[in-house]
Amino acid sequence: AAEAAVRAQAEAVRRLKQDKADPDEIAKEVAKLLEMKAQLGGDEGKHKFVLKTPKGTRDYSPKQMAIRERVFDAIVTCFKRHGAEVIDTPVFELKETLTGKYGEDSKLIYDLKDQGGELLSLRYDLTVPFARYLAMNKITNIKRYHIAKVYRRDNPAMTRGRYREFYQCDFDIAGQFDPMIPDAECLKIVHEILSDLQLGDFLIKVNDRRILDGMFAVCGVPDSKFRTICSSVDKLDKMPWEEVRSEMVGEKGLSPEAADRIGEYVQLHGGLDLIERLLQDAKLSQNKLAKEGLGDMKLLFEYLTLFGIAGEISFDLSLARGLDYYTGVIFEAVLLQQENEHVEEPVSVGSVAGGGRYDGLVGMFDPKGRKVPCVGVSIGIERIFSILEQRVEASEEKIRTTETQVLVASAQKKLLEERLKLISELWDAGIKAEVLYKKNPKLLNQLQYCEDTGIPLVAIVGEQELKDGVVKLRVVATREEVNVRRENLVEEIRMRTSR
Amino acid sequence: AAEAAVRAQAEAVRRLKQDKADPDEIAKEVAKLLEMKAQLGGDEGKHKFVLKTPKGTRDYSPKQMAIRERVFDAIVTCFKRHGAEVIDTPVFELKETLTGKYGEDSKLIYDLKDQGGELLSLRYDLTVPFARYLAMNKITNIKRYHIAKVYRRDNPAMTRGRYREFYQCDFDIAGQFDPMIPDAECLKIVHEILSDLQLGDFLIKVNDRRILDGMFAVCGVPDSKFRTICSSVDKLDKMPWEEVRSEMVGEKGLSPEAADRIGEYVQLHGGLDLIERLLQDAKLSQNKLAKEGLGDMKLLFEYLTLFGIAGEISFDLSLARGLDYYTGVIFEAVLLQQENEHVEEPVSVGSVAGGGRYDGLVGMFDPKGRKVPCVGVSIGIERIFSILEQRVEASEEKIRTTETQVLVASAQKKLLEERLKLISELWDAGIKAEVLYKKNPKLLNQLQYCEDTGIPLVAIVGEQELKDGVVKLRVVATREEVNVRRENLVEEIRMRTSR
Repeated sequence: AAEAAVRAQAEAVRRLKQDKADPDEIAKEVAKLLEMKAQLGGDEGKHKFVLKTPKGTRDYSPKQMAIRERVFDAIVTCFKRHGAEVIDTPVFELKETLTGKYGEDSKLIYDLKDQGGELLSLRYDLTVPFARYLAMNKITNIKRYHIAKVYRRDNPAMTRGRYREFYQCDFDIAGQFDPMIPDAECLKIVHEILSDLQLGDFLIKVNDRRILDGMFAVCGVPDSKFRTICSSVDKLDKMPWEEVRSEMVGEKGLSPEAADRIGEYVQLHGGLDLIERLLQDAKLSQNKLAKEGLGDMKLLFEYLTLFGIAGEISFDLSLARGLDYYTGVIFEAVLLQQENEHVEEPVSVGSVAGGGRYDGLVGMFDPKGRKVPCVGVSIGIERIFSILEQRVEASEEKIRTTETQVLVASAQKKLLEERLKLISELWDAGIKAEVLYKKNPKLLNQLQYCEDTGIPLVAIVGEQELKDGVVKLRVVATREEVNVRRENLVEEIRMRTSR
Repeated sequence: AAEAAVRAQAEAVRRLKQDKADPDEIAKEVAKLLEMKAQLGGDEGKHKFVLKTPKGTRDYSPKQMAIRERVFDAIVTCFKRHGAEVIDTPVFELKETLTGKYGEDSKLIYDLKDQGGELLSLRYDLTVPFARYLAMNKITNIKRYHIAKVYRRDNPAMTRGRYREFYQCDFDIAGQFDPMIPDAECLKIVHEILSDLQLGDFLIKVNDRRILDGMFAVCGVPDSKFRTICSSVDKLDKMPWEEVRSEMVGEKGLSPEAADRIGEYVQLHGGLDLIERLLQDAKLSQNKLAKEGLGDMKLLFEYLTLFGIAGEISFDLSLARGLDYYTGVIFEAVLLQQENEHVEEPVSVGSVAGGGRYDGLVGMFDPKGRKVPCVGVSIGIERIFSILEQRVEASEEKIRTTETQVLVASAQKKLLEERLKLISELWDAGIKAEVLYKKNPKLLNQLQYCEDTGIPLVAIVGEQELKDGVVKLRVVATREEVNVRRENLVEEIRMRTSR
């Protein structure tokens, strides 16, 4: 009977839709239908829910959150050390805001359903929303960070920290400045964060879109193929040169000679010496773009040397980065060795940070095309988080997930009211305190709760203590007990839990 | 010519779709088309973008973020004071996870477009994802908070702090405990937070779904109409009784007599005395549900009295709350008076927090229907934020948006390298420092930058200072200048900026 009612309701909904009825009306009837279906499931005791999070996403448990907050803390501390402000933008943007910014990656954008009104998409990164924000508010000068989730319909590889919903931690400098000073600061920031997090040895690869474009030009790549050949080069960190070459020649129709010339350049990497050599390179030095890029690269390395970090930076001609919006320096940080001590199956991680200069993006949003030069870095928190999580697992380090200083307990029955009165006093004084939600809990259970959750102190109320105007304070670790006058309790707890 | 190419590409896409070609293929060609369109826009200098955030959403500027973080800080501090852990869940859930949980409000859920794969919806609140999380991980006992954005396709009223994307700050206690102890703690938390934020006088209205249902029963509302009549009662904070009554009788087919009987009850509000009176009420006292609810309400008020907050709590029979999942105590906090000193147009705010007990929700997700009793509170940050933002605007309080302690400056030209070397030393020592991104900035501009952004100190390097191994430290506020030996600089800055 109930099923018949559901069918009837479904039919009614179908008819309303067919008749193009008032959308509100339809929505109401659909809601009713869903309700009925849910009820039906409930009545039969058949819950057909798949109990999971969507593909490529996950929950964070309290323990994972504790690790995540440590990582965020290190990153935010660094961003603030460099004088950044913070902004936030909505999780979705008008679809057209994201259109034409990501090249071939556009197909990975999550669109929202057209439910009447604007067409919306979930943000794909924090850079395009930042550029939209600058143009919209006519801001030409800002140094800001933004930590938020972004969304990509990619093939998830969650054990390696690749998700469809993931955090990006972005730091960007917008404004017209003298060359390479902000660019160098971005690299310094990556260096500081990766050092602080103690992730082991790392390398920051650097290149420049202008050098790449110049290289393509002198190798004989037609202008129209620059972007697509660039995205082939971008695959060199995952594929051997031979495969990339055959993609260039086979799929993308590049001449074998041009591909081979590219092959010679993209194997080069080094420091100031390589830059000097390429500045003398017979072909590259004739190309205006490449020359500009190499000149700036030299300046960048000088600043990196002043910052004391040039040793971890490699000028690498194979670094391309897929996104369309980069116009100058590009970079990517990779971890050099796995943290595989005590870990059965080491996490294989690739790039943990990346970024570059995008001088044209803001102009794409400005009605008059006014440009605001920008350079920025994005820290890929998920991969870093995977490593730290595994490290914690392996070390058997016990992570507290609460900050509770004291449990308010009693040894006798009928003292719930007294416990509630005391804990209320403690809360009002700013003490972090808990109480078991039982009328008459056993003292042993109360002590066990402290052991389990790492609460260091127990404040015990009992008949005698109440008469004497004291509270028995017990140190969980040492089992030491002292009577503290009630009016001194807050101070005593503060003293014993401050470090 | 370019436009013809776009038209041709559009035609190609149309054909592929008609032929039901490989979706990846289609996506690729669509991306190409969008690219071409974007380019076309660019070439013509006609940017047709609407430069805005989606309807009902907004960006947060650095200044707004500073206020937002103050509010979050107060809330998180309170949640941690009560021993809560923290979790996080994805921004979207499987569509079926949200189905049948929100009654008439279901129509406000944002669905994602079906792009192949699972059907997804943006979360509508944090409570249903929490219940899904508990059932999925078989957790029967947890006290957690969760601060995140939720999404409702509602009619936005942004000046009053009503958005389509907004933050919820949720604290929930899950587990089988003795009655009303966790419920009382939730109310204590609301009281602490609203007091801490100094939002002026407030009132927390309390009721119980069982009392409402019992009241409906004794008033002669048929069982099948409980939910819909309940949602009419829920409108009493926005509509006069006469209108609500006519909705009940006219639209919902309730008998006028039943409506009038409801009308008598829903105007009642008070404290322990009212509870005692209703426990003696000839009709209500005969109803099992109502009696249970009133008994627990009495216990709740006893605990609230122990917590010293009963004065701000009102047992209010008109409080209904729309969501379907509540099963016991429900509550809602409202601000009693506007903060309208110095404010031209006072923000009119309604409810700033709400919550209740939902003992059946987790069971809806469990394959065997096992229940986990829960009670929780949700703080509505946006309305609070609107008030504080307006208060800051009115007070002309200057809010710093960075924490920079010192600007590294120079008075002479050609000292960029020296500035970079010094700032690198400061960063590495953990000092928050900035430098202007100019080769040869004027000292006046550097000092002006400090005035504008509130940086308290300037470290000035010059030829003479370099020779002497000192740095000139200038206090921006007093213009005082002292030479500090370079090796003591970090310590000196720390000392002068610690409070």
